[in-house]
Amino acid sequence: MSSPQPLHDAPPELLAPPPPLEAGRPARRRSPAEEARTLVATSSLGTLATLSDDGHPWGSLVAYGTLDDGSPVLCVSVLAEHGRNLLRDPRASLVVAEATTGADPLDGGRVTLAGRVEPPAADALVAARAAHLAAVPAAQAYIDFGDFSLWRLCVERVRWVGGYGRMDTVDADEYARAAPDPVASSAAGAIAHLNADHADALLAMARALAGYTDASAAVCRRIDRYGLDLAVRTPRGAAPARITFEEPVDAPGGLREATVRLARLARG
Amino acid sequence: MSSPQPLHDAPPELLAPPPPLEAGRPARRRSPAEEARTLVATSSLGTLATLSDDGHPWGSLVAYGTLDDGSPVLCVSVLAEHGRNLLRDPRASLVVAEATTGADPLDGGRVTLAGRVEPPAADALVAARAAHLAAVPAAQAYIDFGDFSLWRLCVERVRWVGGYGRMDTVDADEYARAAPDPVASSAAGAIAHLNADHADALLAMARALAGYTDASAAVCRRIDRYGLDLAVRTPRGAAPARITFEEPVDAPGGLREATVRLARLARG
Repeated sequence: MSSPQPLHDAPPELLAPPPPLEAGRPARRRSPAEEARTLVATSSLGTLATLSDDGHPWGSLVAYGTLDDGSPVLCVSVLAEHGRNLLRDPRASLVVAEATTGADPLDGGRVTLAGRVEPPAADALVAARAAHLAAVPAAQAYIDFGDFSLWRLCVERVRWVGGYGRMDTVDADEYARAAPDPVASSAAGAIAHLNADHADALLAMARALAGYTDASAAVCRRIDRYGLDLAVRTPRGAAPARITFEEPVDAPGGLREATVRLARLARG
Repeated sequence: MSSPQPLHDAPPELLAPPPPLEAGRPARRRSPAEEARTLVATSSLGTLATLSDDGHPWGSLVAYGTLDDGSPVLCVSVLAEHGRNLLRDPRASLVVAEATTGADPLDGGRVTLAGRVEPPAADALVAARAAHLAAVPAAQAYIDFGDFSLWRLCVERVRWVGGYGRMDTVDADEYARAAPDPVASSAAGAIAHLNADHADALLAMARALAGYTDASAAVCRRIDRYGLDLAVRTPRGAAPARITFEEPVDAPGGLREATVRLARLARG
């Protein structure tokens, strides 16, 4: 192994984008804990790492539901290798990855939840079962088979990666307290709509709200409860820009109104 | 944990489909080793399980290329937790999952390759680098950074799961010798085309070649170099049926001719 060279966390072309020409509005983003909770909440499929009997790390696909504190609930058969592994050693980690559509699969979000599995306590069994079935309806067919058990993964350590240059370690208590983004499931549709029908509004936002007064085009890359990430084109090169909503969006259907308000602000 | 009840490996409604009314043609399928090689060859993204310094299993997303013997080649930074883990302990497993579109995520294919990573030998470095870059073009941006290293995962143990009731352990030598299915990348398009435009041909196949002489409809669920998997509707209930090509397809573009020949055989 050669010794590390100077740190880098983004492809070279992204390291020095042109700055805004004027100060933009203050940016607010999801915290790493909110990013992690959102990734876990918007999927029901992950890869579980467990320990085989010889101590070898073993990975396998699992479906999960999520409790209110973000703990995943697995429904696992002792006939599966990972089921036998968990019976022997409760240490596990669960990786949940965003469904990416981009050209570079490592520029998508993912999170690792490491901890120990335990059977849900008697008074938590109903909630655990309901959480699993809500996320994995197909489990109805086998959840009551005798070889299947529910396991709650008690999260001790969280590592979130949002893509190049966006990553953080998350405190387990902070993870438990954070809320998943309520607009996550409508983000893809909103992005497609904005880019297809409202390129002019996005450009106005880049110019008036992010300080890129020389912008010639703007494309929405991401949207969340706190705002939009734009890719802005300027004569000085391409740059990312963050546009923050006037108020965080608190309901799944709230993106439209928040975006319309931003567009009015940009034009007025 | 309760003791295992009688074994099951499929949802109840699939346990007793109606049998064909006449003997169908002999069925040929991909071997589990071919299934595993095909899954690994058709993706470049997986989840790696490694061992943290305290022995905890740690999962993380990785991109990989594949050598001719099916060994994955990773390009990993020592700045990443899994990079430090591999330096300390070479034991790892890689999970590659099929991109599923069905309602039940656990009814899709996935494979676990367990083994040990090692730096490619000097005379294998060029091939390893080329394999990684062919599968992960974005790695060009960082493959030469000093904190990144290439690792070959030497596969010792393979577990393939194709979905409910389709799973097997694969001998590592058999995995190394098997070939990926050359038609895997054109399968989804072929299935869509067959179901949209050739429902009559599929029905004829179910009746004449699979022995479901009372079939009223047939939908193609999967297609591979050896044949088609159909979901057949009969007055006696739904049933799966396998239709085997006259010859295995050996080239990516060969599905059309093989399917046309089957349709002629079914009708003549």
